[in-house]
Formats: sequence, structure tokens, C-alpha cells
Amino acid sequence: MISHEFYMNIAIQNAKATKGQTDPNPLVGCVIVNDNRIVGIGTHLKAGGPHAEIHALNMAGELAKGSTAYVTLEPCSHHGRTGPCAEALVRAEVSKVVIATLDPNPLVAGRGVSILKNAGIEVEVGICEEASRQMNEVFNHFITVKKPFVILKSAITLDGKIATASSHSKWITSEDARKDVHQLRHETGAILVGVQTVIEDNPSLTTRLEGGRNPIRIVLDSKLRTPLDAKVVTDKQAPTWIFTTSNYDDRKRKSLEEQGVKVFVTSGEKHVNLSQMLEIVGEHSVSSLLIEGGGQVNASFIEQQLINKLELYVAPKIAGGEDAPTFVEGKGAEKMSDALEFEHVTVTQLGRDYKFSAYPIYE
Amino acid sequence: MISHEFYMNIAIQNAKATKGQTDPNPLVGCVIVNDNRIVGIGTHLKAGGPHAEIHALNMAGELAKGSTAYVTLEPCSHHGRTGPCAEALVRAEVSKVVIATLDPNPLVAGRGVSILKNAGIEVEVGICEEASRQMNEVFNHFITVKKPFVILKSAITLDGKIATASSHSKWITSEDARKDVHQLRHETGAILVGVQTVIEDNPSLTTRLEGGRNPIRIVLDSKLRTPLDAKVVTDKQAPTWIFTTSNYDDRKRKSLEEQGVKVFVTSGEKHVNLSQMLEIVGEHSVSSLLIEGGGQVNASFIEQQLINKLELYVAPKIAGGEDAPTFVEGKGAEKMSDALEFEHVTVTQLGRDYKFSAYPIYE
Repeated sequence: MISHEFYMNIAIQNAKATKGQTDPNPLVGCVIVNDNRIVGIGTHLKAGGPHAEIHALNMAGELAKGSTAYVTLEPCSHHGRTGPCAEALVRAEVSKVVIATLDPNPLVAGRGVSILKNAGIEVEVGICEEASRQMNEVFNHFITVKKPFVILKSAITLDGKIATASSHSKWITSEDARKDVHQLRHETGAILVGVQTVIEDNPSLTTRLEGGRNPIRIVLDSKLRTPLDAKVVTDKQAPTWIFTTSNYDDRKRKSLEEQGVKVFVTSGEKHVNLSQMLEIVGEHSVSSLLIEGGGQVNASFIEQQLINKLELYVAPKIAGGEDAPTFVEGKGAEKMSDALEFEHVTVTQLGRDYKFSAYPIYE
Repeated sequence: MISHEFYMNIAIQNAKATKGQTDPNPLVGCVIVNDNRIVGIGTHLKAGGPHAEIHALNMAGELAKGSTAYVTLEPCSHHGRTGPCAEALVRAEVSKVVIATLDPNPLVAGRGVSILKNAGIEVEVGICEEASRQMNEVFNHFITVKKPFVILKSAITLDGKIATASSHSKWITSEDARKDVHQLRHETGAILVGVQTVIEDNPSLTTRLEGGRNPIRIVLDSKLRTPLDAKVVTDKQAPTWIFTTSNYDDRKRKSLEEQGVKVFVTSGEKHVNLSQMLEIVGEHSVSSLLIEGGGQVNASFIEQQLINKLELYVAPKIAGGEDAPTFVEGKGAEKMSDALEFEHVTVTQLGRDYKFSAYPIYE
């Protein structure tokens, strides 16, 4: 017999193929197997359209009877736009359902499984669980905590520098790595920098990929120092939101708003209140946020345990320099044992550069 | 027909198996193939013993006639302790010789090939050249420039730090990576630190591996500040050599020498003259040197283009801290385009850590 993992991986691959087109729904894939032959394949294509199981059941037709259905996510139990998939599986008389992950919403997790079990269908949960969870990490995070999934991205030299002592930073990584960054921007709802980056580099923070979507641009700017002629203010390529503190200047605020910039005032006095910022961003249904800050902004997010994932592009070069900035500054850990550790690390080669993808372990 | 690479790789694997036991000779392997069957395998085991070709020819016996011999290094042409291997191949009447790399000594490179060709033997050079050269990188470097092959080793966090702002550094990497470092020490002739490391950490710089060899310990100490009760002075686990400048204190020098420490005075005034240090180390037949310095010592070697290889152990953690030291300090590159680039990068996972091995590209 072919392994459960074999079929589940096909379901996962199909689900991943629709990355970016199912928002605000998660990626889901389904494979239906009868007598050791695949008889149906489905994937959720678009919010409002049929769920993966429905597509797969349609393809299987009569052969769904007595089959095993592999689904990357627990079949839904609610009467939404497309009806409960768990009931559809029961009606089709499948014999067994193999599920990668339960519903990430703790309020409904297990309900789909119950419907199946009550109908006498054998259920197995946890096949390829990690891969399935990771593919929907943004969705899972957002629907549980209602704040965006925060990705800290940086491009560094082997010695951790993001610029030389005299602030030169173009370019650290090569074309392939920079293209990957634009793919990240395309996939992310919003991008965040500190005002210092806007003043020094005047970036556009757009996605330079054919057909790429631009993220909403967020600037942390405690005193509203963003120049009125900054690209993020003038170029109208994407919405720009500035988060500030109670110390803002009202005339500057008006000038920015006249240019179409949204200004949000947080309860912070010296620094923008980052937790509050994330809440506000979440309230606007933005489910992911890419931090492309300097060492101080990055340190603030790390110290407050606000990042969910690290995407670190490492160029095989050494800049050196005791005064050259590193990608995480601030006060730093007191002891080495206090350093923030990461798990589920993957290292990918991108041209001559390397990308570390990893998840922080918060105590 | 089986490819040349297939047989050459067997020769390379056998040669690598004797790493550490052939000094001062290089690693060499040989495979003899007749009528698509391996008829002889040889590897150089020990200086003074037969070369790889001789072992392989002995095993092949009569079947060497008409065979193809694969040798990782150009067969020698000189009448040394074991006679010229090129002539032995001619006498055995092999038909063809496939060579990975020519002799690294420019004075004799090509002579072995000439002997073979003059005897009517077909010769092909360059199969698996890079792998063969790399396996003897220390030997090749040393016999060409008479200075040790310099390996810069460091253990860092993802943000390039070698300690926290308050100088805590134990431990950055995990057990597996630290064991690998001791393997490096075992394979290297000498290890170098700055006096600041001796004063702050009081390391023994020995090889903690069962049966491991200790490298000679070298301290860069411009003013002879090495404490008389430092482990490298008192523990007698390995020779300790201190390199200083003309600014040394004569009484301190005598006290150190009474303890068995060798003191070398270089022409530097403020800092030890590193090139001169390398010459002196080379004159003592030490063919490899491992730099385990702090950020300033590392920066000096990099700025003077004196390192030949980087072995960088990266732990998946972030220490942060604008005052935390990185592994390369000093003045650093002026522009990012002036950063020292590396090639032939390999990334190896060691437990939860990663090792970057790479070679600097000097203009």
C-alpha cells in the first residue's frame, strides 16, 4: 500500500499551488483514493468557491464510495457559503478520512472530525501535520490572535552587518536573493520600516515583480518626521500608514493626510506602541506584516517578542567594522543564554547567497 | 564505460581516509582499471612509505599492463625515497594515466606528465581537479609560499555576535559544533589568539578529543601582557609561542621563557607584524594556522588579506546589542562593494548549528 504521506503530500502540493489566491481563506488540498488509485483531486481555489473536498468529490463521482479522502485541513462543519464539507464526505460514503491538521480555530477544532466519526467513518489525524500547518502559518496565526503574522526580514553579511560604518548598503545580496524578497513582499499584506530608513534611503517599498502586488506601507514615526516629498508619500503606488505617538505635530499630520497618508496615533510617548500598532493593523484585516527595519526597529520587535518568523538573507562576504550596524542592535541579551533561539530552521541557497528561514522560541 | 569521475572519486576517498597521517606529504590516492574492472587500489599511507601508485601497481601485478591508472596527484618525477612513480607506471606498461591535479610545486609541475607522454602513454589531466586540490589545500599552499595556510574560525549568532554586550559568550554553539572545532584543532599545526582573549578567557586552546593532537599555541601580544599564571603558560599541554613587538619588557620576557614559552620579536611597533609572524611560523615547518581571535584580531588578518579559508559556525539565535562585539570589527569596509567576498561556499548542518566553509576572493 502506498503510504498516507505520499497522498497527503500531493494534497499539500496542490494546496500550495494556490498560494496568494485564496485570501482570506486558508490553502487546502484534497486527494481521494479508491482501491489504491487516485480517483479525485481537489484544491480550494478562491474564497466563495467550493472547498477542496467538494472539487475532489465531484471528480471522484461514484468512486468516492468506499474511498479514503486525504485532506490537509479538517473538513469544515459550518454552514458557510459552501456547506459543511464533513457532511458532504458522509453523503459520498467515503470509508476513511486522513487529516493533516485540525482546524486552527480552537472554537471549532474537532467538530468536523466528530461529524465524520458519528457517521461511522474512520478518521486519522496528524499525517504531514507540520508541513500543512506551515503552509497556512499566516492564516492560522491571524484567525487565532487577530493580529498580523510578523516576519522579520533582513539582508546581512556573514558578520551580521546591514551596512558599512559609513552607511553604504547597496548591495549586500545578489539579484536572486533580492528577487526572493520581492516575492515575499508580493505575498505579504503590509511592510514596515522606521522613519530613519525613510529619511536616509527614501525607499518605495513596492514589489518589483511583473504582476506583483504591493503591500501596504507602514512607517513607525514617533514625531512625524516623514518628509512630505518621500516616495512613500508622493508615489501613490500603495497605501501608506504612519504610526506615531502623542508627540506628533498636528500641522504635519494634516499635510500628510492631505497627501492621502493615514496617520494612526498610538498610546506610546517616546516610541510607537508596537502591540497596539499590530492590533490596529489586524483590525484592518491585514494578516501579515514584513519588518524591513534597521537594527533598532528590529531590536524593538525582538525584545517585545513580537516576531513570528525570521527570513534572513546572508551574503557570503565580510564587511567588518566595529561601527558598522548589525541587523539587531538595541541593548541586546544580557547573557548568551538569554539570546533568542530559533527552531525549524531551513537554509536555502539563492544564487550565491543563503536564506535562513526560522521560527523564534519564546519561553 | 564507467566515467573517469567514478574511479577518480574512489581514489580521492581513499586519499582522504589518511588525512593527518601523511605529513609532510600530501594525500594521494590511485585506482588502476583494466578492461572495466578495478585491478589495483593504492593510497599513500605515511611519509617515507611507498607512494599511492606503487601500492596500486603492486596490487594489480601483471594486470597493470594495458590498464588505465587514476591518480589524484601528478605522479612524481624525482628520485626521492621511493623513486619516480612516473617511471614505475611506464615500466608497468599502463596504457593511460588520468590525473586530477598537476604537482602544486611550479618547479616540477608537468615533469611527471612528460615522462609518461615520452613513453607513449596517453595522459588526461583535470578530472575532479577541484576536489583533489581542496583535499590538499594546506599542503599546496605551504609548499608554494612556505607560510602556513591560515584558517579563520569563529562561532557566531545569526546577527554576527561573538558575545553579548556584557561579554558573555558561553556557549554560542552546541555540542556538535564544538566537537567539530576540536577536530579542526586536531588537524591544524598551530592555533592563534590575541592576548586579550588570554587575559579575559584564560583558554587552554587544546584539543578535547580522545587521541587528539594539540596544536602549538600562538599568542599575539605586543606588550607581553600574557599573565604568568595563564593556562597557556603553566599547563604544559602544548608548546606556547608568543609574538611581540620591539616594545616588550625584557624582565617579563625572561619570566615567560623560564616557563618554557618561546618569545618571538617582530618588527611591528604598535602591533605584531603578522606577515613576519607567518614567515617565522612557516620556517618552523608549521603548515597550518587556526585563528580563533576576537573581532580586532580577525579584522587585522582580513584587512591584510592573510586568511586563506573561513570556517564559521553559526548558531540559530539572535543576541542583539549595538555594543555586542561581532566577529569582525576594526575599521571595516568603506563601501559595501569593498566587502571581502567568498567563493566555494559550503554550508553543513552540525546538530542545530550551521558551518559555513568558504575561501576569500582577493583582487
